[in-house]
Amino acid sequence: MAKFMDVHHGMQGITAEQLSAAHRADLAIEATEKVHFERAWADPRSGTVYCLSEAPSAEAVRKVHERAGHPVEEIHPVPLSV
Amino acid sequence: MAKFMDVHHGMQGITAEQLSAAHRADLAIEATEKVHFERAWADPRSGTVYCLSEAPSAEAVRKVHERAGHPVEEIHPVPLSV
Repeated sequence: MAKFMDVHHGMQGITAEQLSAAHRADLAIEATEKVHFERAWADPRSGTVYCLSEAPSAEAVRKVHERAGHPVEEIHPVPLSV
Repeated sequence: MAKFMDVHHGMQGITAEQLSAAHRADLAIEATEKVHFERAWADPRSGTVYCLSEAPSAEAVRKVHERAGHPVEEIHPVPLSV
């Protein structure tokens, strides 16, 4: 398992409720790919959402986000953290 | 106070020790700007480092990182989180 930071763009105007709903949608299906989405942070103004996850691969992260209805192209492994 | 995600580029090859040292350098002086750096994640391969902070402004985050020796240009407010 490894940590990943993925970045969504084009989410201008996202609300707290929409961010929570998107996160819940990920949590509901993440186990199918052995992924766990830990946290997410959003900037409604720039439309950027950052998601921190633990997963077996970037591909697993991509699949969960896609099936949950919010596909992402930018997925970065972050093996180091403090 | 608000939350910010800042992104450093060009840090290829950064080690766990270097990430810790950089974080400690921020923590040592952050109070001068009323900033607190909570977490940081790094990808040595792409050279990307993400820092999560709580601060009065993006400018305050910029100042601390600059004085600590690792200036950053990309600082995003992230008012929403889950």
